[in-house]
Amino acid sequence: MELETRQIQFGTKGRTDIIDITDMVESEIRQSGFTEGQVTLFAVGSTTGLSTIEYEPGLVHTDIAKMFDKLAPYGAHYAHHGTWGDDNGASHVRSTLMGSSLVVPFVNGKLTLGTWQQIIFVDFDTRPRSRKVVVQLWGKKRE
Amino acid sequence: MELETRQIQFGTKGRTDIIDITDMVESEIRQSGFTEGQVTLFAVGSTTGLSTIEYEPGLVHTDIAKMFDKLAPYGAHYAHHGTWGDDNGASHVRSTLMGSSLVVPFVNGKLTLGTWQQIIFVDFDTRPRSRKVVVQLWGKKRE
Amino acid sequence: MELETRQIQFGTKGRTDIIDITDMVESEIRQSGFTEGQVTLFAVGSTTGLSTIEYEPGLVHTDIAKMFDKLAPYGAHYAHHGTWGDDNGASHVRSTLMGSSLVVPFVNGKLTLGTWQQIIFVDFDTRPRSRKVVVQLWGKKRE
Repeated sequence: MELETRQIQFGTKGRTDIIDITDMVESEIRQSGFTEGQVTLFAVGSTTGLSTIEYEPGLVHTDIAKMFDKLAPYGAHYAHHGTWGDDNGASHVRSTLMGSSLVVPFVNGKLTLGTWQQIIFVDFDTRPRSRKVVVQLWGKKRE
Repeated sequence: MELETRQIQFGTKGRTDIIDITDMVESEIRQSGFTEGQVTLFAVGSTTGLSTIEYEPGLVHTDIAKMFDKLAPYGAHYAHHGTWGDDNGASHVRSTLMGSSLVVPFVNGKLTLGTWQQIIFVDFDTRPRSRKVVVQLWGKKRE
Repeated sequence: MELETRQIQFGTKGRTDIIDITDMVESEIRQSGFTEGQVTLFAVGSTTGLSTIEYEPGLVHTDIAKMFDKLAPYGAHYAHHGTWGDDNGASHVRSTLMGSSLVVPFVNGKLTLGTWQQIIFVDFDTRPRSRKVVVQLWGKKRE
């Protein structure tokens, strides 16, 4: 059994920007030579989210954002704004609810996702950011 | 340390059908002979969810559904419907929020759940489905 | 590769009491001697939650609670109350949505959290409780 800690980096636009990171994760599995095991993804930062979705424009650009707007609208007042003079209380609340950690098994070097299921990183922050996701792989490697 | 990838399969009724899969998961642990380690569960499909609950009728048949109805009602319009002519936008939104991955430790072959805490699979889709959950076990086995 | 199952225990005030457990988790990593690997946290009990947050008073005492009050208010009627004569339907609903399991990688003995990102345990129950979180560590140890 082996263990390897890698990371991926990319830019985001913020405001519930939903990014398909499936290819990046599969590329890390391929490069590392793991065949069976798990990948643990951890999004660094307290205005981020990780989950899975059917990555199509309707959900990605409209439906998920609308659901979060009901729960924690960007325009509202948050006590968080008083602490630092920030404007991203909604981003933090959304992140804590969605969660920033995800574990996905793989077999024969392939993630066990459904046909219409992709891994997404969500940037809830109110501005473009450069983001980092820890990609920890472990399991069996090619002989 | 050993690793084993299994799966469980079952039928669901859809529309936020909440299924107690604790016994199925414990049976996989027992059959595999693992004593201490973790089970990573991954629900295949983008209208699914995994979590824990006190599995009693009030929560399972009424309270959880009511909470999701506020957030993402089944009858509403979703941009997702325009993409494929589907009717299950609510199912996708609920799935992405709840998450389809869960990791539970076990010790002495027993999951570390609370007395009133069960593992659930949730089918948010709008119709009955046959579902698959990947059950990846790793840790120490009986000598 | 090694595996070790520990636990932490602490008291809570309930009603969405948000507790920073980062130091407790790091102390378990330090005591166990692990350098690179993962910690799987599992909150025992069906009215609990685990996630990450920027641990500052505005979010911790006001904003997160307000978001959950919209979704599942404490004062409302829940079918759960009819089952056991309990008053904590809101606590259960919140717990199932947030999730009670969290996996965080660590490298050089340090969790891969962001600068403003802490690990939190949330007690959604309606009264003070004594709580237990399973801390399962695995990976490489100091030679």
